[in-house]
Amino acid sequence: MTRTLDVFLLPSLATEADLTERHVVVIDVLRATTTIATALDAGAREVVPCLEIEDAWKAAQGFAPGEALLGGERGGLPVEGFDLGNSPCEYTAQRIAGKSLVFTTTNGTRAMQRCRPARRVVLGAFVNGSAVVHALAEATEIALLCAGTAGKVTREDALMAGYLTSELASLGRVTLNDQANLARDAWRATTARSRSLEEELRDTQGGRNLTRLGLGHDIADAAQLDRFRLVPELNMQQWTIKAGA
Amino acid sequence: MTRTLDVFLLPSLATEADLTERHVVVIDVLRATTTIATALDAGAREVVPCLEIEDAWKAAQGFAPGEALLGGERGGLPVEGFDLGNSPCEYTAQRIAGKSLVFTTTNGTRAMQRCRPARRVVLGAFVNGSAVVHALAEATEIALLCAGTAGKVTREDALMAGYLTSELASLGRVTLNDQANLARDAWRATTARSRSLEEELRDTQGGRNLTRLGLGHDIADAAQLDRFRLVPELNMQQWTIKAGA
Repeated sequence: MTRTLDVFLLPSLATEADLTERHVVVIDVLRATTTIATALDAGAREVVPCLEIEDAWKAAQGFAPGEALLGGERGGLPVEGFDLGNSPCEYTAQRIAGKSLVFTTTNGTRAMQRCRPARRVVLGAFVNGSAVVHALAEATEIALLCAGTAGKVTREDALMAGYLTSELASLGRVTLNDQANLARDAWRATTARSRSLEEELRDTQGGRNLTRLGLGHDIADAAQLDRFRLVPELNMQQWTIKAGA
Repeated sequence: MTRTLDVFLLPSLATEADLTERHVVVIDVLRATTTIATALDAGAREVVPCLEIEDAWKAAQGFAPGEALLGGERGGLPVEGFDLGNSPCEYTAQRIAGKSLVFTTTNGTRAMQRCRPARRVVLGAFVNGSAVVHALAEATEIALLCAGTAGKVTREDALMAGYLTSELASLGRVTLNDQANLARDAWRATTARSRSLEEELRDTQGGRNLTRLGLGHDIADAAQLDRFRLVPELNMQQWTIKAGA
């Protein structure tokens, strides 16, 4: 088989046709897809992605008291009144196991909303990189959708797309679009350097933002390749994310 | 001095603020900026960039008979009734020396129109790569604007942006945006392979389109690094491109 693999460095660069019937990986390394994978690994029942803070409050009202926690960010910082922010390390089993997480993050959620015509939508980050590759091993029509930040291309998401492109290309014949070729080559140049993945992620717009906010530890967490084996999967009918494999 | 250098992989990814008072390089390797450099080197007096075919016909009427030639493309092919297409090899001294060229190409012209708030606008391609680097040696605020094709990122333009980023970064301290970092790394990975620049340009969406149209020779022409020493410069008041250095 020849696989088709297209990368889109921003949600706005993918048309509806580009995603229709595709296996789509949504990528928001710093931090939504990293944090959601962490929460699910810690035993969260499900994640409900919300675009606006108001939507999150409303969604949380649908749960019995104590069943759900509110998490997410605005401008990188926790939302007032929410239980949790968007730092992976906050999502411990003690906090989240057995609970639903109502989660709001602008860029990641917007990217997921773009995926409605897709066949299947999973969430990718370095922390579950190999698991995502494994989950796509039989897929022939793949799109990697980088969330970016506020309409700007982000290097951390492009590098994750490059990692996945490189790994999937090693499994057999694949036709890449130009953005996939670029992402793969950028990833290759990165691995050819002596810098660690954490250092590379620090040297991105998202990484610098986090450092400025005093959240540099989140970068180290996001750089832990293959820490988890699960693949968060978005159920588009129920609009919830659950752990798959 | 620390230079600021931002790459935009598509015109739509650059806001007005991103280009204001910047030294901007418009990049459309296959083929507008390559062909315009070729025409000016062959002695064309000036190039008048036009977005629509109708605009080109109107602009040509402003010239005395024999003073101007019409050139350009639609879908990669010559425009009916025009004197020349968009293949660099058509632009010989015999055809174009001493004449004005009224030229229409959608992607390149659209990118130039985006540059109205810029301080200075030059055109870059591999054929005049070093000349562009030289022309920007003293500039502190630089933007590299890739034309792309019909709203899609094109690898050939991103690689040229990567080449320029790499060369300009070697001249001193520089702050790059994420797209510049990605383009530079993609260029680095390209130069680390054993393939020629021509082979790399063939393996792009634009290159495959040209091959399909039987215009593969244009790729070889576009891959001739530093064939010319001139730098086409857009005069935004007169809306003409002339050879600078």
